[in-house]
Amino acid sequence: MVSFTIKHIAEQVGGDLDGPGEIEITGVDALDSAGSGDLSFITRGAFIKKWASSQAAAVLVNRDIPADAVEIVAGKAIVWVDSADLAMAMVLEMFAPPVSRPASGIHATAVIDATAKLGERVTVGAWSYVGPDAVVGDDCVIHERVSLAADAVIGSSCELYTGVVIRERCVLGDRVVCHPNVVIGADGFGYRPRPDGQGLMKIPQIGSVEIGDDVEIGAGTCVDRGKFAATRIGNQTKIDNLCQIGHNVTIGQCCVIAGQVGIGGSATVGDFVQLGGQCGLRDHVNVGTGSRLAACSAALSDVPAGVTWGGTPAQDIRETIRGYAMLKRLPNLVKKWGK
Amino acid sequence: MVSFTIKHIAEQVGGDLDGPGEIEITGVDALDSAGSGDLSFITRGAFIKKWASSQAAAVLVNRDIPADAVEIVAGKAIVWVDSADLAMAMVLEMFAPPVSRPASGIHATAVIDATAKLGERVTVGAWSYVGPDAVVGDDCVIHERVSLAADAVIGSSCELYTGVVIRERCVLGDRVVCHPNVVIGADGFGYRPRPDGQGLMKIPQIGSVEIGDDVEIGAGTCVDRGKFAATRIGNQTKIDNLCQIGHNVTIGQCCVIAGQVGIGGSATVGDFVQLGGQCGLRDHVNVGTGSRLAACSAALSDVPAGVTWGGTPAQDIRETIRGYAMLKRLPNLVKKWGK
Amino acid sequence: MVSFTIKHIAEQVGGDLDGPGEIEITGVDALDSAGSGDLSFITRGAFIKKWASSQAAAVLVNRDIPADAVEIVAGKAIVWVDSADLAMAMVLEMFAPPVSRPASGIHATAVIDATAKLGERVTVGAWSYVGPDAVVGDDCVIHERVSLAADAVIGSSCELYTGVVIRERCVLGDRVVCHPNVVIGADGFGYRPRPDGQGLMKIPQIGSVEIGDDVEIGAGTCVDRGKFAATRIGNQTKIDNLCQIGHNVTIGQCCVIAGQVGIGGSATVGDFVQLGGQCGLRDHVNVGTGSRLAACSAALSDVPAGVTWGGTPAQDIRETIRGYAMLKRLPNLVKKWGK
Repeated sequence: MVSFTIKHIAEQVGGDLDGPGEIEITGVDALDSAGSGDLSFITRGAFIKKWASSQAAAVLVNRDIPADAVEIVAGKAIVWVDSADLAMAMVLEMFAPPVSRPASGIHATAVIDATAKLGERVTVGAWSYVGPDAVVGDDCVIHERVSLAADAVIGSSCELYTGVVIRERCVLGDRVVCHPNVVIGADGFGYRPRPDGQGLMKIPQIGSVEIGDDVEIGAGTCVDRGKFAATRIGNQTKIDNLCQIGHNVTIGQCCVIAGQVGIGGSATVGDFVQLGGQCGLRDHVNVGTGSRLAACSAALSDVPAGVTWGGTPAQDIRETIRGYAMLKRLPNLVKKWGK
Repeated sequence: MVSFTIKHIAEQVGGDLDGPGEIEITGVDALDSAGSGDLSFITRGAFIKKWASSQAAAVLVNRDIPADAVEIVAGKAIVWVDSADLAMAMVLEMFAPPVSRPASGIHATAVIDATAKLGERVTVGAWSYVGPDAVVGDDCVIHERVSLAADAVIGSSCELYTGVVIRERCVLGDRVVCHPNVVIGADGFGYRPRPDGQGLMKIPQIGSVEIGDDVEIGAGTCVDRGKFAATRIGNQTKIDNLCQIGHNVTIGQCCVIAGQVGIGGSATVGDFVQLGGQCGLRDHVNVGTGSRLAACSAALSDVPAGVTWGGTPAQDIRETIRGYAMLKRLPNLVKKWGK
Repeated sequence: MVSFTIKHIAEQVGGDLDGPGEIEITGVDALDSAGSGDLSFITRGAFIKKWASSQAAAVLVNRDIPADAVEIVAGKAIVWVDSADLAMAMVLEMFAPPVSRPASGIHATAVIDATAKLGERVTVGAWSYVGPDAVVGDDCVIHERVSLAADAVIGSSCELYTGVVIRERCVLGDRVVCHPNVVIGADGFGYRPRPDGQGLMKIPQIGSVEIGDDVEIGAGTCVDRGKFAATRIGNQTKIDNLCQIGHNVTIGQCCVIAGQVGIGGSATVGDFVQLGGQCGLRDHVNVGTGSRLAACSAALSDVPAGVTWGGTPAQDIRETIRGYAMLKRLPNLVKKWGK
């Protein structure tokens, strides 16, 4: 089992230690559920009162919390840091166990087309497929049961987990991570009434998907190929599980898109945008740089840059909250004014 | 083809038979679509009027429906029971055809790590993978194309359908069923701005997932691993398809969670909670024991125990319905009061 | 690289050409992002102003746009057509590169049960499974890692992409396309309190799924098997990614169902219905023929035929929009009327 003294941890995170430095820390947990070898954290005033009764052996505390607010407990340690969140991320890194990966090299059961080009030190797990003329960069880790169709291009140091499907001609940058069962490049969704009036005809979806560097895509998420040209996702953008990204969507850099978000066809999302869980963006909607959309909102028209919007239809979050409050009071107001 | 006399069925479900006992029943269907060998059911008054014109050969009727309300039809049978729903479940069990499962034993194409521990009578289908030090309990059925990563632990009598992915160190109890393409233990979704301001850094997700006994998880659903400690799902909880369960969520026992529900990180859900389809729970929200959330609702703040809430933001369902009604009347009210 | 002269393209789409016919077109893109060999399109007045500054070599324009509204640019061509959308679909067909498919025949690693019946010219990719008594029609293309369980029946000319799971006794018509990771026939979601009060018992889900001809189903979408009888999807209906179709749902013909829609158990959807992205239909709700539901709406009660509804709960979209507007004005109205 990995363990570190709290003194060593305090040094690693640049914190000031109050209490015995020799305490051995063997794990990390919330104050509520921490055991006697665990380090915990106080990021907000609301957590302070849980500290005295916690089993945790030590705690990371934000320096902006008053020193006398946090009880000194005999035999336990307090580590003061600028950001307990950030320090926590560093501690988690120290305790991180290795990821389960296939053995190095190409598994005997993998099928690599003779025309595919694999870089140096590529790992390909069991029952994975690399199609004709596909390209895989150096140091990629392809878990078992992954498919790269013809002409797919994967940059260096990517990690594709079990069940990922990359369809033809899609392009991923460097250090892209796709979690299990991600589907990149399925056909966009486009149909038209047939000219003869007999049902629907499919509009060919001949574009591709282009994904930048350092993008991470959550389990089960689907990014559709463009009707023409490409669906694009910018560098460093992070997408959570079970999201749906429609054809010809363009997403900028450093966006954070939470679980089950749906983005309709041809919508554009600027850089540094944050979309809360289950948000929907109607097709062709544009969201400006740096804007944030609250969880469970639906953007049915353009969202300007730099705003925080929410609700359905999405608008300034303060207006939405005001509207919720009004709606709640409305029955009484109506009673007062007379029906 | 399986068939039973209606007399035999009436005995099995503890019902009172009106009509000819020798009718052979070969299947089950709704009154609208039943054929001449089918048994159907009347659970609510609204269904009664469909009985006379139905092709069904017999019908299960709740005893709380007045006897004279259900027409007696020559050559057809009525079976009176305490709960037609429950009786129906028993009849479906009688008619249930066998599930399609891989042949007993370990398929020749499966890859079982030499350090994995498999119990007695375990079935492993084609192209499935059991990683280093993984543990599989007695009588488990692992369909084709399932992956258990290193140190995954599966209790006895579990059934993992095609395409299921269980990542490292996740733990499932006994009799857990995972439907196709379930993903257990993908990384939680956590990023922070980099201290140098250059984009986002990933917060390590070093926890695991712990799932109790008798849990059933629907197709495509994702349960993320904890940032630290575990994401937990209690005994007997049932989760439908395409749900997203965020990192460090705790779900109690005997919950029923319908399709496409999303539960944000660190939320807690008490025992016996029911969440309707497409509900969203914001991260860190707590839902109390026995509460019910209507379909398509969003809980943006804590939900007390024992309540029925709905709407966005979720509140007492009666208030929500009142608000909907008011909103509908508002245009006329404004006209009356003057703008 | 594929290329056509604009004259040839104009002839193919039945358009009138203004400008030099010998321009070589090598691709298709939106006016904003088109390159110098691309054909673009003007379907709405709003796009006209982008034409003069576009790199596009030629443009398809709807005939209902006034001729003098579209600038004539030296060396570039305009093609007038009845419907630029439809013409575009035809042009995309001309430029469509081949889909990446497994080599003809049965891959050496596929497992086909001895009792399965395969038609003529069937392709089965690597690591795919066809179970006992399953039937696959002529000219089907089954990509790698697809599973057809016992007694599944697939019509002719179907295409099942990577990771598709068809469970036992499900039936697909002719020319059905299932995109990656589609799950057909997982158990419906049904539980009841146990008579002994000790938790939940599963209601057997013994029905199947019946899918008509020319149906297309998007990546990750799940269609559950019926509790009894079948969940049914009519001819020519198109379903986008990550949708959830509950047990015993009946969907008519020629419906268009966008991404992440959820349809609760036993709901019925008439012919020619359009459901916008992320819509929810409560269980047992009926949607009439030809109706449309706006994106992000929730139908909590029956929707009549031929209407356009939206909002939560869904109602006439005009009422919903009026309600949104009222809610926005409400704070000011309350101020005026006095609290």
